[in-house]
Amino acid sequence: MDDRIRRHAEILVDHCTEITADDNVLIRAPTPAEDLVVALYERIGEVGARPSLSWSNSRAGRAYARAMDAEDFRLNDARLAAMEETDVVILIAGSTNAAETSDVAPEKSAASSRASGPILQERLDKRWVITQHPTPADAQQAEMSTEGWEQFVYDAINRDWDAQREFQANMVELLDPADEVRIVAGDDTDVTLSVDGMDAANDYAKQNLPGGEAFTSPVPDGVDGEVTFDMPVMRNGREVEGASLRFEDGEVVDHSAGKNEDVLTSILDTDDGARRVGELGIGMNRGIDEFSYNMLFDEKMGDTVHLALGKAIEECVPEDREFNESDTHVDMLVDMSEDSRIEVDGEVVQRNGTFRFEDGFESE
Amino acid sequence: MDDRIRRHAEILVDHCTEITADDNVLIRAPTPAEDLVVALYERIGEVGARPSLSWSNSRAGRAYARAMDAEDFRLNDARLAAMEETDVVILIAGSTNAAETSDVAPEKSAASSRASGPILQERLDKRWVITQHPTPADAQQAEMSTEGWEQFVYDAINRDWDAQREFQANMVELLDPADEVRIVAGDDTDVTLSVDGMDAANDYAKQNLPGGEAFTSPVPDGVDGEVTFDMPVMRNGREVEGASLRFEDGEVVDHSAGKNEDVLTSILDTDDGARRVGELGIGMNRGIDEFSYNMLFDEKMGDTVHLALGKAIEECVPEDREFNESDTHVDMLVDMSEDSRIEVDGEVVQRNGTFRFEDGFESE
Repeated sequence: MDDRIRRHAEILVDHCTEITADDNVLIRAPTPAEDLVVALYERIGEVGARPSLSWSNSRAGRAYARAMDAEDFRLNDARLAAMEETDVVILIAGSTNAAETSDVAPEKSAASSRASGPILQERLDKRWVITQHPTPADAQQAEMSTEGWEQFVYDAINRDWDAQREFQANMVELLDPADEVRIVAGDDTDVTLSVDGMDAANDYAKQNLPGGEAFTSPVPDGVDGEVTFDMPVMRNGREVEGASLRFEDGEVVDHSAGKNEDVLTSILDTDDGARRVGELGIGMNRGIDEFSYNMLFDEKMGDTVHLALGKAIEECVPEDREFNESDTHVDMLVDMSEDSRIEVDGEVVQRNGTFRFEDGFESE
Repeated sequence: MDDRIRRHAEILVDHCTEITADDNVLIRAPTPAEDLVVALYERIGEVGARPSLSWSNSRAGRAYARAMDAEDFRLNDARLAAMEETDVVILIAGSTNAAETSDVAPEKSAASSRASGPILQERLDKRWVITQHPTPADAQQAEMSTEGWEQFVYDAINRDWDAQREFQANMVELLDPADEVRIVAGDDTDVTLSVDGMDAANDYAKQNLPGGEAFTSPVPDGVDGEVTFDMPVMRNGREVEGASLRFEDGEVVDHSAGKNEDVLTSILDTDDGARRVGELGIGMNRGIDEFSYNMLFDEKMGDTVHLALGKAIEECVPEDREFNESDTHVDMLVDMSEDSRIEVDGEVVQRNGTFRFEDGFESE
């Protein structure tokens, strides 16, 4: 077996979820992730915990959804009961065909998600992590060779996460007490976000592997200015290119896109919360150095910033602050590697992709 | 998809387990059975029930068992909780490598089975079925080509089970009220089994697919005579050939084998119950016409009889009758296709593979 897979499994068990002999561990994985499952079972055996294995199978899911009537989806209480007795959940992504469910009616997908909502809610109370096993189909989606995608995935995942946590802590310490963040990039992006009273968090790969961002939620009515996004936004298989948003008092008052503008419009029309920013994230994983059309990786990419339209992050919004509610959460990225700066309370903290706590930083 | 796979799925859902919209259905399947899983999900969707999918993975199981200490195996109560809320269980066999767990210490396999005993007990109270998906590795085990094994499996499985039930009922009606059954084959087999007061049962593929036998449990001390078995007995990957047993008052008092006699000895030494017969079965599935080294099929083979050393069958032993207890249950087969007869209470009911309720039967 590829040594990188064993390393991946060790990080999942030892760092992300800190499994001990007391734990029931639920692993959910697709067919091509078998090697990672075997490596996980070995490591979990060494720890003395008790694994079980749910087979994530998009062909079966598609066949079921197509055969069902949309109104008949109901909760499987055996799955809920299992989740209640589970301590740790490891969710592994990895497609055989990333378009497998493209001919399932969206209302059926939505009905299925609604029916299993209680299982998701229960899972969020456990120690859980989402990760990626590299497959040829996902390489294709990323427009990379299979070997290139494998290297990309492991460069992002198999890191020294203690060192990464310390690196990111520098940014969290700047962001957490801040009142205001300004993002400037090229001629088309200059936006100011109030983060007054909000908490900043450090994603060092506890619930996402790869991790690699510092993030917070802005004040819902405290966003003003313009942003043009440098990476396509994927939505139901359609790609919005060159999306641009103008904010006033937190709300999107104007939007445009170079391609598939109607998709962007439909995102904004989801609900009131979808017209406001729920998250500001600073990508800090330098193991990720190109876009891959996979948000688990893209939002952590070094020298990027992302704003998410829609639902805010619970751990970032204290109880006495306004929480932006929405049924959606769509991350959109800005490249900060050149001709750009991040200001915190008027002070430049990153310029052209270099942080002030790094060598080579130019304050002006 | 192969039409035979869809037919297999329909039989599992409609005939074996009679799934309705009220049911939570747990499917446990290995990687190569994906097509059957997809067909099952489609049929279960048509019915409106709720499936979940457990991935049976012998590579992962092996890695876990080797990494664990034997004394550390404990019950996974998340799996037990799921089983408690499940209505129907479909277990699918199908190897990628039938020897995958050959280097797991037997005491670890035993410890693992003991730890999950409560899950097995819970499952036995559900509607459940065990079936087989054809794979190249199992074809190899059966010493058949992959295509030959596929045809063999579907000939056994994709049958008219209502007609099969009626055919077998003829034998059950003879066996159920009987006091004594005598099996004579060739020069080496002549054994008499008391079935006085025992119940006979009809296996028409409710819990085994393929099904295809009439069976009962003999009185534990009511077996006398000699039996030579025509098919190798497989035990932990070792093959006992030419096994011969001599019974007095139900107990094996002499045994021999042409090859691996020590394995036969170890079976008999399991416990006291392992020296007595727990089951007498009459194989009646004529879709199965050759040995395949797979007991799910072999014991149903047309024109065979099998005796099992060890544990009796609960549904065959009324409460006021003695039940043969044992930790083992090893089926051993006698070919009844020629130079043979089955007598029930002194009357010949099968001769040279033809039952008295069939055309061509010769009473003498």
